[in-house]
Amino acid sequence: MSAMDTSDLPVAVDAMGGDFAPAAVVEGARLAADAGVRVLLVGRPDELGDTGGLEVLPASEVVEMGAEPASSVRRLKDSSIVRAAEAVRDGRAKALLSAGNTGAAMAASLLRMGRIKGVARPAIAVPFPVFGSTPTTLLDCGANAECQPEWLVQFARLGVVYNRARWRVEHPRVAVLTIGEEAGKGNDLVKATCELMAGVDWDAAGAQYVGNLEGRDLMAGLADVVVCDGFTGNVVLKSLEGLMAVARTQIEAALRSTPEVAATASVVDPVLAPVFATLDAGQTGAAMLLGTRGVCMISHGSSSAKTIAHAIRTASEMADEDVVGSLRAAIEAVA
Amino acid sequence: MSAMDTSDLPVAVDAMGGDFAPAAVVEGARLAADAGVRVLLVGRPDELGDTGGLEVLPASEVVEMGAEPASSVRRLKDSSIVRAAEAVRDGRAKALLSAGNTGAAMAASLLRMGRIKGVARPAIAVPFPVFGSTPTTLLDCGANAECQPEWLVQFARLGVVYNRARWRVEHPRVAVLTIGEEAGKGNDLVKATCELMAGVDWDAAGAQYVGNLEGRDLMAGLADVVVCDGFTGNVVLKSLEGLMAVARTQIEAALRSTPEVAATASVVDPVLAPVFATLDAGQTGAAMLLGTRGVCMISHGSSSAKTIAHAIRTASEMADEDVVGSLRAAIEAVA
Repeated sequence: MSAMDTSDLPVAVDAMGGDFAPAAVVEGARLAADAGVRVLLVGRPDELGDTGGLEVLPASEVVEMGAEPASSVRRLKDSSIVRAAEAVRDGRAKALLSAGNTGAAMAASLLRMGRIKGVARPAIAVPFPVFGSTPTTLLDCGANAECQPEWLVQFARLGVVYNRARWRVEHPRVAVLTIGEEAGKGNDLVKATCELMAGVDWDAAGAQYVGNLEGRDLMAGLADVVVCDGFTGNVVLKSLEGLMAVARTQIEAALRSTPEVAATASVVDPVLAPVFATLDAGQTGAAMLLGTRGVCMISHGSSSAKTIAHAIRTASEMADEDVVGSLRAAIEAVA
Repeated sequence: MSAMDTSDLPVAVDAMGGDFAPAAVVEGARLAADAGVRVLLVGRPDELGDTGGLEVLPASEVVEMGAEPASSVRRLKDSSIVRAAEAVRDGRAKALLSAGNTGAAMAASLLRMGRIKGVARPAIAVPFPVFGSTPTTLLDCGANAECQPEWLVQFARLGVVYNRARWRVEHPRVAVLTIGEEAGKGNDLVKATCELMAGVDWDAAGAQYVGNLEGRDLMAGLADVVVCDGFTGNVVLKSLEGLMAVARTQIEAALRSTPEVAATASVVDPVLAPVFATLDAGQTGAAMLLGTRGVCMISHGSSSAKTIAHAIRTASEMADEDVVGSLRAAIEAVA
């Protein structure tokens, strides 16, 4: 899947996954195609509406958003997410993008594409926005609720490779998420992880270890790759999403609360829009599952067509960069 | 400490604790005194500046912000935080307020006031703002990095009593913080906790158990008391603080980025101020350590004088409400 030239292959898009699927997904796919990315829509052909002539891989079943991932993927063999993962496995597509059930996208990728040799557990890598700089990648954001210290060290290695491929950060700074800046603060997992991290030759991995990082510094640009267990990462991700949603709703309501302030909209809204766009990047920027033998990109369930299009482009780029090959090489180097 | 009338007793204020101590703390204490709360300043008399005639309990040592809590408290017997905790223990003060080293405030309270009988571990309860409603109390926000399921159930019991005392919520809704709405989602601790929670007679505790809650709903008003381990709670708290700081900085900069938009300030700033004030409540609202035999209130290190004054008033109210007595009764009822 990795060494060959993938630029002519399409991105397999799970057309049935997402809160506004298939409409928003198809629209996003069309936008991506307009931007020059080849797309393979996977789903129920008669439900896709006007695909604008995009290729379609028929799949008769759908894994619903709330469904139990592993059993659904095993049972629904003709589901859009399973067929999309198979398209990558079979060399028919270079990457997978889904805005549907995250657990199902993960399970389908694991079961159909398989794991990179030497990877203990794949992890979900999510970019957190940093103003004036490249994002900070937090992983794991939900693939593994329980983690071993060794896995977190490996997540760091995967994150370093990803950061370099995606944002051209040559020597990513690596940190462990914890509850105090001093060494020795944290829970048992963090303490054990920090000991292991300190013994790694990060220079050989083209990275530098900057120690502990507190939640408050997650968006301060103090590290490029931050590792934590999947429970903590997911809770942080969702909590920040929740705060942003509340903050934005309240700010927008306040800015319409009197005729006088509403009259400033034409001046105020344009300067606030880019701020909100950046802050929302954690929600709208696609996450990538690192550790599978193919690119699996995951978009937020509530993604708009524009967000989907962006995620498809990113998935395409990650495939063309051969990020899976680089991940494999990094893991092999320390096997 | 609990059954007697405390209204005439002062709140012992750690004058030396906090990023802007003692100046901001003394100013906050004076504001609280102006509002009718009796205050006992604890610290180095010659460093306190103009105390406006407030009572002072001399203490010659200071536990620094970054110091290791337990050993510092053991070693610095004449530190302001230790003397303040002793004042509560000795019935000389009705409550303690510190904006200093949180771990030291916790350790001093535990060692000097002691634990309520039957409480496995005290927990830090932090109010998260909910627009249009009373806050949601998250605990533990950092007292215990590693937790047992039984402790989380007890945290919920403590939180219920606290919620009722502080915000007059008659039948608090109780939830467990996790990473999916469905039962069975979460890490091992959460799964075990949910099983225990489901078996509790919450009706008898004057509460209702509403199941799991995701991070994104923490500020949505779906529960009054949410429990998690202290590592997760602290990471969430700090992450939200970090996002709010970044968001506010960027929004305020954007609103000054051109002369045209800066000219709207007189109209825009007044409507945004209350929104920011509410969103910052998680940072500025005092946290309470639940489970010690005396009221220990903890303010953010960066607290302003106004925030300190508010925290002192809250500490005073919690003492006058005999929240410690209510907590003891709730734990005794199920012993």
